[in-house]
Amino acid sequence: MKHQSIKEIGVKPLEWIDNKVRFIEVSMLPEKVSYVETDSYERIAEAIERLEIRGAPAIGVAAALGIALAVVKSSAKTVNGIVLDAVKAARRLEKTRPTAVNLFWAIDRMERRINELSKIVASISEFKRLVVEEAIKIMFEDIEVNVRIGVNGAELIEDGDTILTHCNAGSLATAGFGTALGVIRAAVKQGKKVRVIATETRPLLQGARLTTWELMQDKIPVTLITDNMVGYIMGKGLVDKVVVGADRILLSGHVANKIGTYSIAVLAKHHNIPFYVAAPTSTIDPKSKQIPIEERDPNEVRTVLNKVWIAPRDVPVYNPAFDITPPELVTAIITEKGVIWPPYPENIPKTLQLK
Amino acid sequence: MKHQSIKEIGVKPLEWIDNKVRFIEVSMLPEKVSYVETDSYERIAEAIERLEIRGAPAIGVAAALGIALAVVKSSAKTVNGIVLDAVKAARRLEKTRPTAVNLFWAIDRMERRINELSKIVASISEFKRLVVEEAIKIMFEDIEVNVRIGVNGAELIEDGDTILTHCNAGSLATAGFGTALGVIRAAVKQGKKVRVIATETRPLLQGARLTTWELMQDKIPVTLITDNMVGYIMGKGLVDKVVVGADRILLSGHVANKIGTYSIAVLAKHHNIPFYVAAPTSTIDPKSKQIPIEERDPNEVRTVLNKVWIAPRDVPVYNPAFDITPPELVTAIITEKGVIWPPYPENIPKTLQLK
Repeated sequence: MKHQSIKEIGVKPLEWIDNKVRFIEVSMLPEKVSYVETDSYERIAEAIERLEIRGAPAIGVAAALGIALAVVKSSAKTVNGIVLDAVKAARRLEKTRPTAVNLFWAIDRMERRINELSKIVASISEFKRLVVEEAIKIMFEDIEVNVRIGVNGAELIEDGDTILTHCNAGSLATAGFGTALGVIRAAVKQGKKVRVIATETRPLLQGARLTTWELMQDKIPVTLITDNMVGYIMGKGLVDKVVVGADRILLSGHVANKIGTYSIAVLAKHHNIPFYVAAPTSTIDPKSKQIPIEERDPNEVRTVLNKVWIAPRDVPVYNPAFDITPPELVTAIITEKGVIWPPYPENIPKTLQLK
Repeated sequence: MKHQSIKEIGVKPLEWIDNKVRFIEVSMLPEKVSYVETDSYERIAEAIERLEIRGAPAIGVAAALGIALAVVKSSAKTVNGIVLDAVKAARRLEKTRPTAVNLFWAIDRMERRINELSKIVASISEFKRLVVEEAIKIMFEDIEVNVRIGVNGAELIEDGDTILTHCNAGSLATAGFGTALGVIRAAVKQGKKVRVIATETRPLLQGARLTTWELMQDKIPVTLITDNMVGYIMGKGLVDKVVVGADRILLSGHVANKIGTYSIAVLAKHHNIPFYVAAPTSTIDPKSKQIPIEERDPNEVRTVLNKVWIAPRDVPVYNPAFDITPPELVTAIITEKGVIWPPYPENIPKTLQLK
């Protein structure tokens, strides 16, 4: 079984090839483009933990593909036996990272489908095929959803705009095309001249390493800055809009995203610059009132990419991976189902058709 | 001739020993404490350019010591001949960096003293001795001034405060004791319990490398964060005050300081956190209406300390070394002559006795 990703989307961060998952080694970018191939869901789980696979939509897709690997590889002799192996993989995968809700969304969808299929499919090979089909569907739907986010968001972008983005909400954070960078790609495809300012995004430098690389591949003009230059650049009138991704959005309109997003939102407000969040509706968490913030290894801050020590080796450190931007700082949320404007507690449920 | 720095000030970033200048190799910190000794003003100029000597007050002191080296080393047979060598050194030293005004202040003071002495001292050895004396006086005055800034600023610090600081405005940015860190040291000496949050300060990481190290030497509790965590930390109520240094202050109250300062000032305003600037009055520029912002090598941003590439090697970059915080974001300016409150256009000249 071989599935080609859509050609036009550029980079293919995740693929399903011959019952294996192939993912791009983001830790080697931008110096080298290389790939990892695995038939082990445990390897996928580790990749998510180590941020070899990162970005909320990509994590969701990878978890779905991971469950598919577990099902394909299961040596159980009954469908119910395979279901037990799938559930084991699901429990492992959902422990990898706590903040991005797409992870739980994708695992939940796979489990529901597996449960459904287990009741109606008796053939082991047919069961496995249909589970894999569901995972691949999730992957391709993610690309389609991103393209729709892009088209919806591009309406907000004007010819000549300079757009500041944080971290990487691009192809490399999704199955392809990207969310925030999808908006930029769609605007460019509409013939608009757009320039991008990418923040480097310490500690793990996804902006410097991934966003710049992705945009340079697509020949979209990009300028790199350190995170602390945002105020200066905005104060000089060099930013027309901010567009970022999200790891989880509450019905209230609170947005969890990469650490640094909240600072940028406050700075955007101070400078009267629109602040847009681009994310699939699978990033919206209709249940929670609070968002757990993952604290990561202090050495991510004490070093740069574990390659250089930049601080005393025993200095105390804070290392939250995410922050939360309150709704009053969010101009609009761009989803595949349309652009959601405030008041969010009213309009998000409307878009999700929860009301 | 051997001058000991004041014992209690801790680190001795700059010393005059046996007609040489000894400076701490900040690029090796915090991994190794080592020193460079030189009798060449050209080496001092290069050290300032390469940020081996950095921090507005330290640059001023180093330039004064550099002129003293030129005078000591001069082989001219007349006082007027030595003056020409001193002027040559002064012209070289003032070209090193454009933003910090202390550099020009110190060079100007040395030139005026040299001019004065050249009219009244005929003996070459006596002339050289008196020029060196002036440079050393500038160095020791800087420490005294910092201690006075500390004592004045400590009045604004309450027992139990957590203070956020940016870059390094400590011993390592001055002849000793520090400006922003001098305020913290003085508060600690008064018996106040104070905790510090240090921003790492990309691109050159003076916060991560120097501020944490300095404070750990003094056993003052410090926690390191990346620059983009400032909003998050403030939003969680973890910051009581901000204290930073300055590279140049205008009579209007505009403050040039390390890139990132302006973003922090906006964030402090948004969270109703006092934002203090600590600087000697030699940092106040009574003449200019504008401040030149130095743009540095893009590879400072594309790499970390020239050790690791973190971005495509040809990505366009902005790299301003400083930004300007407008007076409405500055709660007060702490100087050796007292704490200056708004309105600055009225109160700064009053403090400088210009009115």
